[in-house]
Amino acid sequence: METKPKRYIAELINEANALAVEKILSVEPVVVDVATALDAVPGMTPDTILHAGPPIEWGAMCDAMQRAVRGAAVFEGLAPDMKAVDKLVKSKKIKLSSNHAHGSVGPMTGIISASMPVIVTKDTASGRLAYSTFNEGGGKVLWFGAVEEETITRLKFMRDEFAPVMKKVVAKMGGIPVWSVLAQGIQMGDECHNRHAASTNLFLKNITEPLFSLGLPVDRAIRAFKFVAGNSHFFLNITMTAAKLAMDAARDVENSTIVTAMSRNGTEFGIRVSGLGDEWFIAPSPYLMDALYNPGYTAEDGAPDIGDSAIIETMGLGGFAIAAAPSMASFAGGGFQESVAITKAMGEITTVKNPKFGIPSLDFEGTPTGIDIRKVVETGILPSINSAVLHKSSGAGQIGAGIVHAPYECFSKAIMAFGERHRLAA
Amino acid sequence: METKPKRYIAELINEANALAVEKILSVEPVVVDVATALDAVPGMTPDTILHAGPPIEWGAMCDAMQRAVRGAAVFEGLAPDMKAVDKLVKSKKIKLSSNHAHGSVGPMTGIISASMPVIVTKDTASGRLAYSTFNEGGGKVLWFGAVEEETITRLKFMRDEFAPVMKKVVAKMGGIPVWSVLAQGIQMGDECHNRHAASTNLFLKNITEPLFSLGLPVDRAIRAFKFVAGNSHFFLNITMTAAKLAMDAARDVENSTIVTAMSRNGTEFGIRVSGLGDEWFIAPSPYLMDALYNPGYTAEDGAPDIGDSAIIETMGLGGFAIAAAPSMASFAGGGFQESVAITKAMGEITTVKNPKFGIPSLDFEGTPTGIDIRKVVETGILPSINSAVLHKSSGAGQIGAGIVHAPYECFSKAIMAFGERHRLAA
Repeated sequence: METKPKRYIAELINEANALAVEKILSVEPVVVDVATALDAVPGMTPDTILHAGPPIEWGAMCDAMQRAVRGAAVFEGLAPDMKAVDKLVKSKKIKLSSNHAHGSVGPMTGIISASMPVIVTKDTASGRLAYSTFNEGGGKVLWFGAVEEETITRLKFMRDEFAPVMKKVVAKMGGIPVWSVLAQGIQMGDECHNRHAASTNLFLKNITEPLFSLGLPVDRAIRAFKFVAGNSHFFLNITMTAAKLAMDAARDVENSTIVTAMSRNGTEFGIRVSGLGDEWFIAPSPYLMDALYNPGYTAEDGAPDIGDSAIIETMGLGGFAIAAAPSMASFAGGGFQESVAITKAMGEITTVKNPKFGIPSLDFEGTPTGIDIRKVVETGILPSINSAVLHKSSGAGQIGAGIVHAPYECFSKAIMAFGERHRLAA
Repeated sequence: METKPKRYIAELINEANALAVEKILSVEPVVVDVATALDAVPGMTPDTILHAGPPIEWGAMCDAMQRAVRGAAVFEGLAPDMKAVDKLVKSKKIKLSSNHAHGSVGPMTGIISASMPVIVTKDTASGRLAYSTFNEGGGKVLWFGAVEEETITRLKFMRDEFAPVMKKVVAKMGGIPVWSVLAQGIQMGDECHNRHAASTNLFLKNITEPLFSLGLPVDRAIRAFKFVAGNSHFFLNITMTAAKLAMDAARDVENSTIVTAMSRNGTEFGIRVSGLGDEWFIAPSPYLMDALYNPGYTAEDGAPDIGDSAIIETMGLGGFAIAAAPSMASFAGGGFQESVAITKAMGEITTVKNPKFGIPSLDFEGTPTGIDIRKVVETGILPSINSAVLHKSSGAGQIGAGIVHAPYECFSKAIMAFGERHRLAA
């Protein structure tokens, strides 16, 4: 069989990528409902527990993710206690599955179990849906793999009290558009991954009147209000559903080299590419060597990078938009100019500037969007992801935060697969 | 009488200015109450109407300020209609006085009349108080000199319904510290004069739980919430009371050349200087030649600059902090770098950087604070003020916004007066 000429395929790829990026930019995500995972998430069963990142076996999971699975199993009544979970997983009485295989995303451990409430976000342009849990906040929380009695108590509050209220709020508002919140957030110092302080405030402002107009006992409305107001990361999971929709729109464009997902299960880092279907191109998940650690912790204590949240960078926010968040300059290892340099570098490996998200200090230049695996491999510039670090073994939860780079190996594997598929000469 | 040697006086001035600036930085403003102007504002009487800027006669007032005085007189029942006000003012049945002479400040026309509710802000370090009205929002509002029936209706709502609720909120909260809101606002793109979007959201977030916990009928609480949420300038007047307290702290420091007030009555621009008591150094108020005008309006339609709000620049926010608000770069006649250049220039005429307000994109360099009349006169760099433009004659209200510069003449007059007082050789 003969190989295709390089010049011809390059044109095909450029056209395909232009189409893929057009699809990303055309998505209009709106939070349309709050539902139980079992009812809403495709393929969900009562004994399934979803996790972040590419599919992974129980034995290969990092400590934090295993703890989170145990916590969810106890929360669901699938296991009498945390220790009983090993056996149940090994005997397939508890099934593990990857969020991305269920239209879902979750930050850090990213656990979703059957009775958990999920945010339902819809791309009103295509009708496609994406799902995530509500963000639990800080402390001993499942998404950090830190499970205590308070963790389960909080999950029950979220399921039994908070979610039903939020479902009514979303219905009363007739849906909550996501981009407009993020576009304002970007004007207010959020990069929309590790910093969502402004976006969360804007969301809170939008929901307050509907919330207090529901006719609920006022103390119940206040508890819901405080749950959001007390967590500056509340909007993170909503952003992730929107980013998931944006990147799902670009899936399966023939000949496209645009990255449609980056995700980590705490052991492996995987990427998916538009023209290469649902295959994950995998490498060991990197450590955050230069992260800022909480007092008492060092890089030695950290687990490898984890979470579906890199879907945010996949669509050009978070680390790609760090110039919009000067308060995160310490992540960049220096000052504001180092942050600008990162955003500029991400421009080298992407296809367009997203006009919806103008970075104020760059005279409203859009965020760099549409990672092209060819550009990553050619330049060696790796996608820069704003992330957090979980403890590798103690269940302490989050111990630091910083920048991590997607492994080169994921992109080189993908480009090889792309070449093989198109029978390209080396 | 012999003249003092220049070298000696320069040292005295530097010491005095260091003391004045230390006083500015030591102020800790907290909103402690909401009260009726007649009860709270020093020297207020039922027939007094306070206005922005240096003292001015009725006949010399600009059209917008006259309209606002007429509106307030009708609101107070001092006059049967707007036209009757001329005669009442001329016969002294209505007395006019300058806000600054009453510990008060108001944006644009700055009108305060006896029954209006005022924000009472206290410097908890010294116990001093300052006052302003609540911000009315946009449209046909007294602070823009636009008076219609809706204007009076809104003032009555603010007095009879909104203010009593806010008084309870402030009491329940035990006071609302101002600097912490502005310090966060600066991180979120506010320069804290023409842009208060983030600060207002933060304030709103802080008051929501107390507001809905008061036991009020929920529709009343919602009306109060919506009044704040619907006005991204709501926090402006609170900022002004805090800035007034900061600059009052620096008054009457012997030998100090620090500016303690800049203010405009729509006809004249006046400044006060610490070592020169309460004298206003006056020049004609400038026009905003390069402002951005609303469709249908040009610089031809604008009145000269107006309002006490330049107290914000006097303490180093607003125009001095414009680098913190890239969304206002169009004010600066260009892009973000032009905004940075303005903030840097303001550093040339000021004494310190205020560590409370770090500008994110300048690696958290503090805002330039403590204008020194010597530096203004020596460098010719004029204080840059973010302002708005009112219509000169039609009562249309605000027709544009942009930057204005404090007149050189105010500073040259002040330095002459300073020289005379100290018998300095030319």
